[in-house]
Amino acid sequence: MAARVEPIRGVIAPTLTPFNDDLSIALDLYVDHARHLLATGCAGLAPFGTTGEALSAGIDERIGALDRLIDRGVDPKRLIPGTGLTNLIDTARLTRHAVERGCAGAMVLPPFYIKDVTDDGLFAYYARLIERVGSDDLRIYLYHIPPVAHVGLSIELVQRLHSAFPAQIVGIKDSSGDWANTRRLLTEVPGLIVYPGSELPLFDALALGAAGCITATANINATQIAKAIDLQRSGREAEAKQLHESVKKLRLKIQEFGQIVAQKYLLAVWKNEPRWRTVRPPLVELNDAVGLRLRTALDEIGFTPAPLAQV
Amino acid sequence: MAARVEPIRGVIAPTLTPFNDDLSIALDLYVDHARHLLATGCAGLAPFGTTGEALSAGIDERIGALDRLIDRGVDPKRLIPGTGLTNLIDTARLTRHAVERGCAGAMVLPPFYIKDVTDDGLFAYYARLIERVGSDDLRIYLYHIPPVAHVGLSIELVQRLHSAFPAQIVGIKDSSGDWANTRRLLTEVPGLIVYPGSELPLFDALALGAAGCITATANINATQIAKAIDLQRSGREAEAKQLHESVKKLRLKIQEFGQIVAQKYLLAVWKNEPRWRTVRPPLVELNDAVGLRLRTALDEIGFTPAPLAQV
Repeated sequence: MAARVEPIRGVIAPTLTPFNDDLSIALDLYVDHARHLLATGCAGLAPFGTTGEALSAGIDERIGALDRLIDRGVDPKRLIPGTGLTNLIDTARLTRHAVERGCAGAMVLPPFYIKDVTDDGLFAYYARLIERVGSDDLRIYLYHIPPVAHVGLSIELVQRLHSAFPAQIVGIKDSSGDWANTRRLLTEVPGLIVYPGSELPLFDALALGAAGCITATANINATQIAKAIDLQRSGREAEAKQLHESVKKLRLKIQEFGQIVAQKYLLAVWKNEPRWRTVRPPLVELNDAVGLRLRTALDEIGFTPAPLAQV
Repeated sequence: MAARVEPIRGVIAPTLTPFNDDLSIALDLYVDHARHLLATGCAGLAPFGTTGEALSAGIDERIGALDRLIDRGVDPKRLIPGTGLTNLIDTARLTRHAVERGCAGAMVLPPFYIKDVTDDGLFAYYARLIERVGSDDLRIYLYHIPPVAHVGLSIELVQRLHSAFPAQIVGIKDSSGDWANTRRLLTEVPGLIVYPGSELPLFDALALGAAGCITATANINATQIAKAIDLQRSGREAEAKQLHESVKKLRLKIQEFGQIVAQKYLLAVWKNEPRWRTVRPPLVELNDAVGLRLRTALDEIGFTPAPLAQV
């Protein structure tokens, strides 16, 4: 029987990836942002998720950026980097690197190029990945994000993977946006660590045993989300619920403007650092007119970011 | 004004990629297959397209396999390898390698992870790619395959790219399976080299100036497709049309069983080489029962493969 894995509990930010004008990763801002998030409410970070424009970065860049975080003192036990690509070879390379650097786990997308694949094919993919990485320290968090990847992981497949590899397939990030799916993961896959990919169903998920959430908007709102969880845990339910309402309002507003471009725009303004606005193609950064509408919208819902001083 | 690029005219096979039992690329079979195809009807090859399980291979493997083909005497002027990934950095690396090895062109997918992107974002992606590759010898063939990539290239975007970069964006493979789209590319983007991604609309496309086709089934049926084109060109229309009918029958049957797994199964049987059956996950190879049904179906439509002796 596999030793039980103690999950990171709380809010995890899929860290935004800042770029310099030449589109290289702005490693200085990347490290500052990671430290800031961990100091202001995040229990952990998931570098190179969808929000981190992971699939817009090269393999060596991803390795280099993760190295930089850890070399500059970010605790790898608080990191669950995304490592999933469309092929086994390079996914194994990224995953092995995360394991070797002592990360808490690796978040692995299903191979997402070929569509309409079978559960047997996806099962074989993860089985071969575990074999190729070949480490007792491997902890995989499945990454279910069908709205983007267009290849998803059925409950039956998750059950099968977790049963076959209880020591390696330890958790899942469910970014389906479908509460029924998250609920089934929480209730029908005993022992699986489940993070909804949004703070919207946070309390319902925590009530069913979720470890927390991995949510894009933690890049600008970790403090409030963490506080809502704390209030709930200490039995102050009414306050928790009230705070959760404003947390949800912010989330919905950011979603409306685009989670990556909207948050990068806001960080550029708040930190007076124009590089934060830069995205890699195929994304297009927010223009000033839309940016102004976004800021007005946040004023209207009364959102104020946590202090942004460098940590 | 850019010098006009002379296209490869005729049938181009998106070469299947054979694997050893340990899932490494079977380079011996890969080279044999390429030589066989070029000797039996193919005017060119497109290694590492969708049919070649390109996105299931690692970056270094793709570079190594292309090197092997060329080092073993396959003329790079007959090669248009696929080089498109989800990110600029590694796509530029693969594309630059193809250019440096003297390939006729590179077939480049749009970045396909992030969905619902804008034409402006995709335009910027290709513009940055051209800038990063930075070679006068770069010839990009856009790869439009929305049924798989779920990110496509609109006619307006193709027009804009071809106008902005006439020397670099020289052609397109249209695997939309939508004749209206192929027809528009042929008639509304002057000077663009167009290959439909199937032999089904072959004569309609040739009549409108298509250079040929890049089609999965060329892996087992190049000879007949090439012959049909020859008959048409020499004015023997009735014979051409009759042959095209059997070419289409084979295509539809292979599609029904899965183009990659079905053709690999058949090559394994015909060449008595079990390694040909192997696919990489998430694909699952054809089992014998289905394989038998496939062979019976081909018998029923009277299909006989071209002689398979090693070239």
